[in-house]
Amino acid sequence: MITLNSPLPLGHGDAVLAFDVGGTDMKSALFAGDGTMLGLTRTPTPLAGAETPQAVVAVAREIAAGYAARFPEVTPRAAGILVPGLVDDENGIGVFSSNLGWRDAPFRQLGEAGLGMPVAFSHDVRGAGEAEFRLGAARGALDAAVLVIGTGIAGAFFIDGKPHLAGGYAGEIGHSIVIPDGPECPCGGRGHLEMLASAGAIVRRYAELSGETLDGARAVLQRAQAGDATAQAVWDGAVYALALGISQVVTIIAPEVVVLGGGLAQAGPALFEPLERTLDGMLTFHRRPRLIGAQIGEDAGLLGAALRARDLSATTEHGA
Amino acid sequence: MITLNSPLPLGHGDAVLAFDVGGTDMKSALFAGDGTMLGLTRTPTPLAGAETPQAVVAVAREIAAGYAARFPEVTPRAAGILVPGLVDDENGIGVFSSNLGWRDAPFRQLGEAGLGMPVAFSHDVRGAGEAEFRLGAARGALDAAVLVIGTGIAGAFFIDGKPHLAGGYAGEIGHSIVIPDGPECPCGGRGHLEMLASAGAIVRRYAELSGETLDGARAVLQRAQAGDATAQAVWDGAVYALALGISQVVTIIAPEVVVLGGGLAQAGPALFEPLERTLDGMLTFHRRPRLIGAQIGEDAGLLGAALRARDLSATTEHGA
Repeated sequence: MITLNSPLPLGHGDAVLAFDVGGTDMKSALFAGDGTMLGLTRTPTPLAGAETPQAVVAVAREIAAGYAARFPEVTPRAAGILVPGLVDDENGIGVFSSNLGWRDAPFRQLGEAGLGMPVAFSHDVRGAGEAEFRLGAARGALDAAVLVIGTGIAGAFFIDGKPHLAGGYAGEIGHSIVIPDGPECPCGGRGHLEMLASAGAIVRRYAELSGETLDGARAVLQRAQAGDATAQAVWDGAVYALALGISQVVTIIAPEVVVLGGGLAQAGPALFEPLERTLDGMLTFHRRPRLIGAQIGEDAGLLGAALRARDLSATTEHGA
Repeated sequence: MITLNSPLPLGHGDAVLAFDVGGTDMKSALFAGDGTMLGLTRTPTPLAGAETPQAVVAVAREIAAGYAARFPEVTPRAAGILVPGLVDDENGIGVFSSNLGWRDAPFRQLGEAGLGMPVAFSHDVRGAGEAEFRLGAARGALDAAVLVIGTGIAGAFFIDGKPHLAGGYAGEIGHSIVIPDGPECPCGGRGHLEMLASAGAIVRRYAELSGETLDGARAVLQRAQAGDATAQAVWDGAVYALALGISQVVTIIAPEVVVLGGGLAQAGPALFEPLERTLDGMLTFHRRPRLIGAQIGEDAGLLGAALRARDLSATTEHGA
């Protein structure tokens, strides 16, 4: 893990504001010109139905005012805002979030009006993935995939050095079919990776087979390591499904690196060793990606928001 | 189908040579400055083991000399050469072809020495796909997939307006796992799309179930349309597998358009209608691509080679 209180890894550039809006909390920080992260704060995401975007921007504005008072020597030139759901980066629109209740919310416009500065707007996993791609585990690769495996599974893909957007629709690897006759997904599909290999799926599957609901995928892994055959079968099934999902990415875009982040990736060798072996058994002439754990910690989203804000600020200054 | 004897669809530009090298035949043509295709010729691909690349270039050189004699008013400024197998476009290397017997063949260098002009080198399906992308069915799209379904299945992917290469490893959708416990593939894998949905697979599967080997996938389709339940089940299975393969492309790269070419796509509505329905049933919130039949005929490869040669010639002239 990189310690974010050091000036690295962001490096030098304009001071910027960063907001990473989640389903329950939003995280905020001010990045100074030397890359130091200041005033990291976590506040509840204000839930106001269709008005949630306005409420989020109002909170961001308050936090920015607080930074201005506490750090008067640091003047941010731009802000980065990341949100979950379906996001149209290019047009600055929060297209849809089932958890947070918006549809076609003009986040960038609201943010620029509220904060009085240029706003870069993107998706939470794409933002965090971009931090891994530019500053972390996938640094130096041209083609890379970043998979975040927690309660669900989401991906960010980088092609020829740039995030692949497809109007916000790219990277939905959690909702790719890996076992065609597999379990139903709440989204309406069947056999999706997220239903088989996410931390949530591991807990659910173990409960179905054993009748016992454990507190997280790590607890299932611990049971497996202690010799519980049911837990082992559940863990192996998740690894198999994840290898299938990664094999799809390999055949279609052939990334040099696949970065695994999120809670499940913290299992370390208990995940990576069988995963590498299973994937290797599935591939033949395909290009084998390096499988690497995420290197930037839970603040990757903030760092990604800061990167985007700096990119924007650099463009704006150069008169584009 | 576009009639290639008209000056369209290539349009105006430098005169160029185009060679599309297949497993049994190689096709050659000279494209005039107004885009007219001249002297289309099909000759056997010279098979000389590891010396095949040199033999191919020698044939290309002879053909070019013939064009110079027949069309003295047309002076090609560059050539495009497409080959099958694993191809590194950027370095001009034929990395591997099991059918044609080469490994790490420096095609671009051999071609430039033999033909005495700049040579653009690429993969046959990527070249044909590029013709569809720039001049045919996917014209105007930023993100597109072109799937060629014949004896095997290969793909070409275009992302943000450009072919996705990944060092030659991208687009191997024929060797993506769609049914994890499906049949073995000669490449060593299992459940690959190509083993389930190619024209070859349809004939093979029907023979397994009925004991009768028909002459092509179209004959299986005709049986199905005449009420043969076994043929119908084979056809439906192929459509289902193809929908699974396309759904992987949709979740990972979310193309606006999926172009289907090759022999199987000529089945028209008998393929496209059930495919569209099956794919639609698999997708939920994903971006639905338009499914379109290839518009440029069997000479798409030559046209793609010509496009690449013209790109190169334009770059060379402008001093890059």
